[in-house]
Amino acid sequence: MSSMHRLLVANRGEIAVRIIRTAREMGIETILACSEVDRESLAAQLADEIAVIGPAPASKSYLDQQAVLEAARRSRADAIHPGYGFLSENAGFARQVLDAGITWVGPSPEAIEQMGNKSQARQAARGAGVPTLRGTDGILDPALRPEEVEQFGEQIGFPLVVKASAGGGGRGIRLVTSVKDLVQTVDLARAEAAAAFGSPDVYLEQFIEQARHVEVQILGDGQQVIHLGDRDCSLQRRQQKLVEEAPAPDLPEEVRSEIRNSSVQLALACSYSGLGTVEFLYDPRSGQAAFIEMNTRLQVEHPVTELITGLDLVREQLLIAAGNPLRLGQQDVTFNGHAFEFRLNAEDPANNFMPSPGTLSRLQWPEGPGIRLDSGVRVGSAVAPFYDSLLAKIIVWDESRETALSRARRALGEAEIEGVHTTLPLLKALAARAELAEVSHHSKFIETNPDFWEVLA
Amino acid sequence: MSSMHRLLVANRGEIAVRIIRTAREMGIETILACSEVDRESLAAQLADEIAVIGPAPASKSYLDQQAVLEAARRSRADAIHPGYGFLSENAGFARQVLDAGITWVGPSPEAIEQMGNKSQARQAARGAGVPTLRGTDGILDPALRPEEVEQFGEQIGFPLVVKASAGGGGRGIRLVTSVKDLVQTVDLARAEAAAAFGSPDVYLEQFIEQARHVEVQILGDGQQVIHLGDRDCSLQRRQQKLVEEAPAPDLPEEVRSEIRNSSVQLALACSYSGLGTVEFLYDPRSGQAAFIEMNTRLQVEHPVTELITGLDLVREQLLIAAGNPLRLGQQDVTFNGHAFEFRLNAEDPANNFMPSPGTLSRLQWPEGPGIRLDSGVRVGSAVAPFYDSLLAKIIVWDESRETALSRARRALGEAEIEGVHTTLPLLKALAARAELAEVSHHSKFIETNPDFWEVLA
Repeated sequence: MSSMHRLLVANRGEIAVRIIRTAREMGIETILACSEVDRESLAAQLADEIAVIGPAPASKSYLDQQAVLEAARRSRADAIHPGYGFLSENAGFARQVLDAGITWVGPSPEAIEQMGNKSQARQAARGAGVPTLRGTDGILDPALRPEEVEQFGEQIGFPLVVKASAGGGGRGIRLVTSVKDLVQTVDLARAEAAAAFGSPDVYLEQFIEQARHVEVQILGDGQQVIHLGDRDCSLQRRQQKLVEEAPAPDLPEEVRSEIRNSSVQLALACSYSGLGTVEFLYDPRSGQAAFIEMNTRLQVEHPVTELITGLDLVREQLLIAAGNPLRLGQQDVTFNGHAFEFRLNAEDPANNFMPSPGTLSRLQWPEGPGIRLDSGVRVGSAVAPFYDSLLAKIIVWDESRETALSRARRALGEAEIEGVHTTLPLLKALAARAELAEVSHHSKFIETNPDFWEVLA
Repeated sequence: MSSMHRLLVANRGEIAVRIIRTAREMGIETILACSEVDRESLAAQLADEIAVIGPAPASKSYLDQQAVLEAARRSRADAIHPGYGFLSENAGFARQVLDAGITWVGPSPEAIEQMGNKSQARQAARGAGVPTLRGTDGILDPALRPEEVEQFGEQIGFPLVVKASAGGGGRGIRLVTSVKDLVQTVDLARAEAAAAFGSPDVYLEQFIEQARHVEVQILGDGQQVIHLGDRDCSLQRRQQKLVEEAPAPDLPEEVRSEIRNSSVQLALACSYSGLGTVEFLYDPRSGQAAFIEMNTRLQVEHPVTELITGLDLVREQLLIAAGNPLRLGQQDVTFNGHAFEFRLNAEDPANNFMPSPGTLSRLQWPEGPGIRLDSGVRVGSAVAPFYDSLLAKIIVWDESRETALSRARRALGEAEIEGVHTTLPLLKALAARAELAEVSHHSKFIETNPDFWEVLA
């Protein structure tokens, strides 16, 4: 392979551990850039070296661009892997990394920028032939008069959503159910977006109730792009994914082909390099899928794709970042069986999912056939209140969706965690639901099934 | 599937856990028949019920046929899975199980009997076209005069081995390097075999130095038989396997085809039902493979086959035992990537591999991509001195042998076990050896490399 010798991992928790593991297998030394509270973490123990970049609040460490860059220089890292979240989709940071002569494990700053702006991404998607929802072409022109905004709204139809152009990942979205609320909501959304994301731009988009969230994993080298199949991530709570699976179940083959092929076209249109995910809403009633956004980084749920393709996505990412061309053509990618991922968070389901910091006094993970465990903790680890509460991902594979789901139930039944509250009871209850087996769930499944919560009482 | 509702698992440790997991996924209730000291074991915790069958020494519990049968009756089990070892290859016990109207998860008593007698098995192998070593046709006729025995020996050539017909698994074997020692060794071997196995019958067989141990996994339903590929188990210490892999590396394709196809023929010849393993010695210098024996049960190393085929072998075993026909034809079996299994035993490599009983105070297993862990213990488990010392199997998969070996090194480096001595240092040293990467190791590799032990000092 082309050269990469010392990789700075600019992240924490399970994804830092995940990246360190593959780097080690490839003979690449790792330096973990971590906050003061994370210096005893599992990731810190597994890395070859650590570089403390600041105190606990992410703004003073994981989001501090200069501190991360300085850690890279000081440790003579020749590459930076940003993981997900934090600086992973920050085009300005990516540019600074490249300007410092360091390899950025991710797509070009231009691609990050284009996809980070949701209205631009929507336009790019349309241009590449990706199906999109009805909505404004670009941003909603701020010069439009109230009547003109309402006219736009009527054309799209209600309910619709007002989305912040600089939002993403479920943030900066407002639902409007009737034309009479539209103008006021747009004004509110613009003010919020300006405050939260630094830009008041919003756009309007058709709203689909009871849609499923499906997405396509793509991999490019700047010249060629292939897809690595699709995933379904419909089981969400407040737009945070809880359970993911691959391939997306019960998707008409023509829809599957359409989203896979058009995702490749979209990535080709921006000379995409590295891993990316094109997200869609799929409406089982109309049988149509539509573009939501593209994530220009490694995804939390990437392991389900790894299990059905046999590929190590972090390895592919590092090989491409190091300057190697794609080593696989589309025909080399085969799909086997079915995989589920269950995200285990340190939150208390019986107490409105409040974060549950503490020290892990006991961990019994599921083991045996078809089980993969990606965890960021070990016994004795402190779960700090400062960060995302993801503790571990319990990932299962089997030859069919039905048997994989049986295996998931078995696996969740074996898990035992003591010291903090976790979402394990929620995950078990979800895995036991007939709707999951029948694929009649959707992205608002949890919110629209209040009876669901009885099992957690 | 045909009916199986309550399965008595007549074994302990990791293999009991392994069987319970798949039974649970299939909706089959499990009763663990266990000794008094094993009533708090991980297997006992995971089983739906336990049935204590006697005190610790295996002769008073796991080998007590009446106690096991009585436990099956009392718990209204409709099937018995014997695992490996203990009663798994006892034809008389299998017959009693069937006579009691209980399903035996294994081949017919006749097949067990035929393969259990090593000279009969050798004859059956020859009849089915399986390549065999030079040696006596059946047993060495006890009526032969010393000169005639020596004549046989000269025909085979020296060194040769004298093997007890009722032995197996490496027991009851004596090496003879020169004709002058032959008669005396045969007499000694007969006396030993009579005492150890209840039969004085021995046979003579050609000896191959620096052979590799390869084997073929077969699966039959009494009518049809398929193979599930091959494995290499050459890394052994005193004929106990330490590291196994699938597929067997560096095997000429014609040898691979020959051993796979002839193993299927051998199984067909005895109307084989269930899982079985046909073992071969492969001599890389002559490029020839020869039959050693057939094991009529689930094998310790079955997970490496599971990882390259995507099949759950215990599930296939239970489906067939329940009366279902083979659900796969040979063309349905595909092979992907490469898998290694490392057996972790509670033994002290620095003290001549003495068993190391104790309580496990800490367990940090490797996790992440491509790792499977089949363990029989958890933190707090007592490792009893009465049984085989296998604690866990660390199993890795990746797309190529080279990357799987890198992954294995990474995985072994993550493992931490406290409370008992283990073979982890030995496994790490083995994984690091160039001979393993180059496939220049053989079944006497450890014994013939005394320098190897320096790393463990």
